[in-house]
Amino acid sequence: MTAFDLVIQNGKIVTAGETLDADLAIQGGKIQAIGKNLSGHKVLNAAGLLVLPGAIDPHVHLQMPAGATTSSDNWQTGTTAAALGGTTTVIDFIEPLENQSLIEAFEERKAQADSQVVIDYALHMTLSSIIPERMAELPEVIRAGMTSFKTYTTYDGLKLTDEAFLKMFRRVSETGGLVMVHAENDAMCGFATRELLAQGQYGPEAHPRSRPASAESEAIERVLAMAGLTGTPTYIVHISTAQGVAALSRAQARGQLAFGETCPQYLLLTDREYSRPDFEGAKFVCAPPLRKETDNAFLWDALSQNTIQTIGTDHCPFFFKGQKDLGKDCFTHIPGGIPGIESRLALMYTYGVVSGKLTLNQWVDRCCTKPAELFGLYPQKGTLMPGADADIVLFDPHQERVLSHQILHENVDYTPYEGLVLKGYPITTLLRGELLAEKGVMYAEPGNGKYLKCNLPRFEQLS
Amino acid sequence: MTAFDLVIQNGKIVTAGETLDADLAIQGGKIQAIGKNLSGHKVLNAAGLLVLPGAIDPHVHLQMPAGATTSSDNWQTGTTAAALGGTTTVIDFIEPLENQSLIEAFEERKAQADSQVVIDYALHMTLSSIIPERMAELPEVIRAGMTSFKTYTTYDGLKLTDEAFLKMFRRVSETGGLVMVHAENDAMCGFATRELLAQGQYGPEAHPRSRPASAESEAIERVLAMAGLTGTPTYIVHISTAQGVAALSRAQARGQLAFGETCPQYLLLTDREYSRPDFEGAKFVCAPPLRKETDNAFLWDALSQNTIQTIGTDHCPFFFKGQKDLGKDCFTHIPGGIPGIESRLALMYTYGVVSGKLTLNQWVDRCCTKPAELFGLYPQKGTLMPGADADIVLFDPHQERVLSHQILHENVDYTPYEGLVLKGYPITTLLRGELLAEKGVMYAEPGNGKYLKCNLPRFEQLS
Amino acid sequence: MTAFDLVIQNGKIVTAGETLDADLAIQGGKIQAIGKNLSGHKVLNAAGLLVLPGAIDPHVHLQMPAGATTSSDNWQTGTTAAALGGTTTVIDFIEPLENQSLIEAFEERKAQADSQVVIDYALHMTLSSIIPERMAELPEVIRAGMTSFKTYTTYDGLKLTDEAFLKMFRRVSETGGLVMVHAENDAMCGFATRELLAQGQYGPEAHPRSRPASAESEAIERVLAMAGLTGTPTYIVHISTAQGVAALSRAQARGQLAFGETCPQYLLLTDREYSRPDFEGAKFVCAPPLRKETDNAFLWDALSQNTIQTIGTDHCPFFFKGQKDLGKDCFTHIPGGIPGIESRLALMYTYGVVSGKLTLNQWVDRCCTKPAELFGLYPQKGTLMPGADADIVLFDPHQERVLSHQILHENVDYTPYEGLVLKGYPITTLLRGELLAEKGVMYAEPGNGKYLKCNLPRFEQLS
Amino acid sequence: MTAFDLVIQNGKIVTAGETLDADLAIQGGKIQAIGKNLSGHKVLNAAGLLVLPGAIDPHVHLQMPAGATTSSDNWQTGTTAAALGGTTTVIDFIEPLENQSLIEAFEERKAQADSQVVIDYALHMTLSSIIPERMAELPEVIRAGMTSFKTYTTYDGLKLTDEAFLKMFRRVSETGGLVMVHAENDAMCGFATRELLAQGQYGPEAHPRSRPASAESEAIERVLAMAGLTGTPTYIVHISTAQGVAALSRAQARGQLAFGETCPQYLLLTDREYSRPDFEGAKFVCAPPLRKETDNAFLWDALSQNTIQTIGTDHCPFFFKGQKDLGKDCFTHIPGGIPGIESRLALMYTYGVVSGKLTLNQWVDRCCTKPAELFGLYPQKGTLMPGADADIVLFDPHQERVLSHQILHENVDYTPYEGLVLKGYPITTLLRGELLAEKGVMYAEPGNGKYLKCNLPRFEQLS
Repeated sequence: MTAFDLVIQNGKIVTAGETLDADLAIQGGKIQAIGKNLSGHKVLNAAGLLVLPGAIDPHVHLQMPAGATTSSDNWQTGTTAAALGGTTTVIDFIEPLENQSLIEAFEERKAQADSQVVIDYALHMTLSSIIPERMAELPEVIRAGMTSFKTYTTYDGLKLTDEAFLKMFRRVSETGGLVMVHAENDAMCGFATRELLAQGQYGPEAHPRSRPASAESEAIERVLAMAGLTGTPTYIVHISTAQGVAALSRAQARGQLAFGETCPQYLLLTDREYSRPDFEGAKFVCAPPLRKETDNAFLWDALSQNTIQTIGTDHCPFFFKGQKDLGKDCFTHIPGGIPGIESRLALMYTYGVVSGKLTLNQWVDRCCTKPAELFGLYPQKGTLMPGADADIVLFDPHQERVLSHQILHENVDYTPYEGLVLKGYPITTLLRGELLAEKGVMYAEPGNGKYLKCNLPRFEQLS
Repeated sequence: MTAFDLVIQNGKIVTAGETLDADLAIQGGKIQAIGKNLSGHKVLNAAGLLVLPGAIDPHVHLQMPAGATTSSDNWQTGTTAAALGGTTTVIDFIEPLENQSLIEAFEERKAQADSQVVIDYALHMTLSSIIPERMAELPEVIRAGMTSFKTYTTYDGLKLTDEAFLKMFRRVSETGGLVMVHAENDAMCGFATRELLAQGQYGPEAHPRSRPASAESEAIERVLAMAGLTGTPTYIVHISTAQGVAALSRAQARGQLAFGETCPQYLLLTDREYSRPDFEGAKFVCAPPLRKETDNAFLWDALSQNTIQTIGTDHCPFFFKGQKDLGKDCFTHIPGGIPGIESRLALMYTYGVVSGKLTLNQWVDRCCTKPAELFGLYPQKGTLMPGADADIVLFDPHQERVLSHQILHENVDYTPYEGLVLKGYPITTLLRGELLAEKGVMYAEPGNGKYLKCNLPRFEQLS
Repeated sequence: MTAFDLVIQNGKIVTAGETLDADLAIQGGKIQAIGKNLSGHKVLNAAGLLVLPGAIDPHVHLQMPAGATTSSDNWQTGTTAAALGGTTTVIDFIEPLENQSLIEAFEERKAQADSQVVIDYALHMTLSSIIPERMAELPEVIRAGMTSFKTYTTYDGLKLTDEAFLKMFRRVSETGGLVMVHAENDAMCGFATRELLAQGQYGPEAHPRSRPASAESEAIERVLAMAGLTGTPTYIVHISTAQGVAALSRAQARGQLAFGETCPQYLLLTDREYSRPDFEGAKFVCAPPLRKETDNAFLWDALSQNTIQTIGTDHCPFFFKGQKDLGKDCFTHIPGGIPGIESRLALMYTYGVVSGKLTLNQWVDRCCTKPAELFGLYPQKGTLMPGADADIVLFDPHQERVLSHQILHENVDYTPYEGLVLKGYPITTLLRGELLAEKGVMYAEPGNGKYLKCNLPRFEQLS
Repeated sequence: MTAFDLVIQNGKIVTAGETLDADLAIQGGKIQAIGKNLSGHKVLNAAGLLVLPGAIDPHVHLQMPAGATTSSDNWQTGTTAAALGGTTTVIDFIEPLENQSLIEAFEERKAQADSQVVIDYALHMTLSSIIPERMAELPEVIRAGMTSFKTYTTYDGLKLTDEAFLKMFRRVSETGGLVMVHAENDAMCGFATRELLAQGQYGPEAHPRSRPASAESEAIERVLAMAGLTGTPTYIVHISTAQGVAALSRAQARGQLAFGETCPQYLLLTDREYSRPDFEGAKFVCAPPLRKETDNAFLWDALSQNTIQTIGTDHCPFFFKGQKDLGKDCFTHIPGGIPGIESRLALMYTYGVVSGKLTLNQWVDRCCTKPAELFGLYPQKGTLMPGADADIVLFDPHQERVLSHQILHENVDYTPYEGLVLKGYPITTLLRGELLAEKGVMYAEPGNGKYLKCNLPRFEQLS
């Protein structure tokens, strides 16, 4: 047996299920072996570092049209920031235009991405129409590598009726795919918003009351009732409330395949941010809105107990100056979304692992492995086991930094986490065995990333 | 002090809160006193009998148009059967026609009833449209004595959208009224029905699967989320499932004014009835359908724990021969509804009190008192305290009977409770101090009953 | 029919189950009738007042030996304070000496009380030994009017082992009586106390940690497990914690006859009191200790939901100067107990009814009716229905007072509720139809009260 | 890089956290690497087989004195059966005699085992006395490799009082060890037993009622309350009831380090077995007894949700003829215990994994990995990661067998699982890289196994 191409030596390997002191051998862009005393032509010394699977962000919106504007990170800047934060795969969305073929929309979106991406990416297909022509495309969409279907209970042009949800659930369940749902009761949000406007409440501080907590939990309950009737695996995106978690948990208890995602903003921030002076509350406007401290605590528990399986970012940045201020006169015109693609892994380490809320393995599981499993990328991605792509992060658990817009590479003029202290940071990122980024420097060219075809999810893996 | 008009002596007086051996004095149609050794010009000896407030059935459909047919009890036959079963007040519904004024519909319905009724009655107003003209009528409707508003989440022509529910809740909450909801998710019922028909399932045995349990609990959850957002007291009619109770209970736990009703059929029967041969399953077709034994048990517990406050009948009879058989070829054409107006009090005594599931006082509370309190008839109705109308039932706790269509007076050719053994039966019914019915004989003439104006409910009474 | 001896006119009669504007007629010391427009030889005008059943305090310790000292209210001062606060019956305890016959102890205790009491009283029998001679006395004890048996899981000389509890439960269950338990795990309290003392913590502020919340819930859980095995109805006294309520509630959910009592101190005060300067924390030393605000809230909910049925006071006063200061050097020597016999009804009105936590009827039920039902005094006591003793309180819902040691008649130099504002106060108290106390003046002589023989409890009354 | 000593090729490697197709390289008795295409001097072809870590049985009683008799498997026969069933490590118990030094008892027990064992073993130290001399030995015991301390709430000579539990918890918590508890309320079991005997019930069918379900849950609740007060990590052995799981789960929810074990008999069998004719019920007598089907279901759920962490066997065999029949005249004399050391892994595969109740990884986790983690043997044992001992099982998921006493090697004349169908079986077992057993043949000599020194548990590993 000859030496391996590359061996990462002396690190502490951390996967969703294992923690061990061993070397990691890479050959042909793949993990070839984990072992003691492995030797390689090239060697990376990871002494003192954690060696993780490259992180997967299951929920990002790059270069996404949003009314009159577009989210400010394009595929290049967004994936660069991701890579520097330890994320080697993002899963973004396709939003077909009205009357557009799904496959055509996919091809356009892929063409837009391919030349820009520095890391690998996959795509969720949004279903905002269930006309027969669209439903007939599902098998082809799945063959093309999209096995997760994003749906909405809110937003004109996106939301589906109950009747449409049921038909869609039935069709997706026949294909073996996974339905993702943005769950907020549209009528309740609309009603609350109109009442606030009628009362003359126009500032960002009105935003959280315009999208009440009960609008989220009601929609989760309803969507999961319909999913249950049709036997369809369902994934609720960006859960923000204790009641929402409770609704998810009830579905799991009755035996449904029901999964949940939350985001760092719902774990770490609260709706007090909306009352910042000088319109600064606008920096935190997203849907669902930030909630209460009791919600934060409940979400951490749900993550730790595997009621919620993944941490996404819902990264959707808009410049405070020039974009967020479109809503200067009325909070309903503030573009909704906040940045976060770069800081997820480090935030979850400090506020999850260091604070004792998650184990090391749970941290890796929720940020890297479960997204791969749920979206059909495992075991190619999300693990360090032999045979996997050699997407690897070296994470320094001792590097202390103050989080700030200045140290990040997201194309936006602020971070909602400004000033938070981090006790650990990703140092080196490898993609398919090649050095991608190190200590803030990007080594790959645009187009380095590849489009990933997702397999259908296999739920028996999830434990 | 002179003797009273009439004294009921030697009985055991049972109210929602008290049980005592005492006499009951009546003067001018009202309860004048409860006391020891009262003397009257006339005397009724109630030795060995329970003396109860006349029962109130909060949910009946007399002479109700249903598609091509009409429920088979008219105001006269229906209220006669009620009286013979110990019920002295029914609350029926007004269903305005499309574009009809609420007040006009009320006047028509009242005119129809007034000449026929042998007992007192009140009316719930159905809101199937929330156009400004209708909403503007609410104050007048309340002044005319209807303070409870019936709404639907299902049935074309009746169901409201979420947006409409929210507006309606807001308007009703401003008036101080109570919203009643028939809660079944329309899309889920429609979807399940279409799938059954596509599978060639046309018989009554398909009926329960066409209206799944989760369609009920989902709708209750949703409606109560919207009611919570607007702060509107809400009453869920005919709850049939354990999950539905759980949804109601969660709303109560978060502090909402949320109330529930169930019916004898949901406590005593199961969906096995739908598999009876010779189309006999059709006799049990109603919406929501009969459920499982675990649902029965859960509903009894909810009644006992005051999660559910009232027992109504949803009495809506159709002849097996000539009406139910409209759906001979397809269960969706079977007129939905079953009879029960006469047997409620006796069934609840045997299967509630004798079996140990309810105390005597809870039996009276759920059948007589809580309906009066929730619909603004208390303390005129629903109690035996001085000042109340002298609506009184003498109930023989030792009279054993086998329940059968032959011993009932409902205008229909069957009872769903055929063969059930009763260990107690109402013997004598008084309305406003006058003998109304005794041992199967009706003593009052049509028109004897009065329309009752309901007050707004006062929830602090409910404990 | 001639006029009654006495009629209370124009009041609002409030019982556990009814609220009505009516007159109350009294004849021969008994309630004779409730009615409209009753006339009497004597008349009491109760316009604007609430007319309640005399309150029953199920848990008091008058003239109770406690180590080197004795609780400072004797039967005369204690029952006088009770009467002035609207309480017409107290239930105190017999604590037989080691090797003393139960009946002999009863006769001594009764002899001590009879000449002093101004209100009626009953007695619970303490069982601190289960030797065959004692168990053989149970039938005679019950015939003599004690049907409730007090037991302890803690305190040397009082506590029973698990084996003894099981035997005792079996014997009491055979007699039809009710077991009362002071539930705190003795070993846990001892252990925690020793650790505090070893750390040099001697002041009153250490007291709450010496009797941890989990010691209470553990003991409740255990005692109810044993009661369940033997099928014995059980009543947990002075529940102080949320966890304790949860344990009780679980027993009820599995179908046991399990009841609970709490006290005003556990509803209204917290363990912050123990940190008062100048040894003032000693004023609040009792067992179990005061707890947290979350416990307060949980207990209110349990009262409102009927998980807890009664409010007692555990009145056991000791002078701050001269008695509490026995523990100046070490909190373990502070006599345990606080006063409260006089203020219960008023405190529960203001902080229960006025604050919206209890309905008027629940207030009467928990303070007057349920104690009568559980301890076999109903319907002689605890209700205003005809046939009951005419023990009546006229309560002014508009009289505002600041609670203070100066306005109370308890024989002790402080009240733990000093400074609390009351929005309602008892004005007049009648015992068996005679004026007992009014506006702070006592009209009865010592010996006016009678010993009440309790019947066995009948649990089907409780709803 | 040269070839490894031994490579297991082409298998499907299954660990607690990973499932992958890869080769496993062994060098010097240790796992050296996991990788693709590894080559070795020797090769084992595992095509079509699952490759697992050797299983660990955390709860066995070999050669254990039990009153007048001794459990029938000695260290040699017992570990041989274990090895043939895929178990490479057992953890047995030391029960010091009265007044015996813990270390001396350890040395005797170790001397007894060392010459006989064919697999590795560790020991739990039983604490039946907490006299200062014993407590003073704890540090030395831990240095000698026993970090888990077995205690009892029942059995004369073993049970500790509450006071003793608290002192013991405090001392163990200071050392960093783990307390194991056999939790059944002794008084409740004694009471129930005496009542059964008094009723003349002497047969095995009385056994389950002599140790009621509530005796278990009560004891778990109590022990965890005391553990919580002292902050001591605690492990409840052989949980058998739904209520017991609920008590454990509550402790976990309040943040305690509380762990649970169940056994195949509590997952697969019920108390109906005790009614077998011809005294055959005696074959199933163990404590706690077998329970109901609802308990089975609840325990499976708890295993799947990680409320319960491990599956032990509590293997403690007695011959039906010659041992169990000591209790022919009275069930209380039947030696308590059943065999199971050989069939655990296969039973859990068929009834856990194949039936869909556990994932493959959960199966390995509960049978192999969690026992290693909780008892300080991880990562030497319980995993296949490089650095671990090469204890390996090749498991054929397609081998179907009917479980029967004839195919097992336990030294006892029956199996409680007679006739159960198995859909998978362990084929080959390696211990520290050497072939130990294959297809029913044992290749190692007595004395081949080693005593394992346990480290202190590190709970952050558990996720």
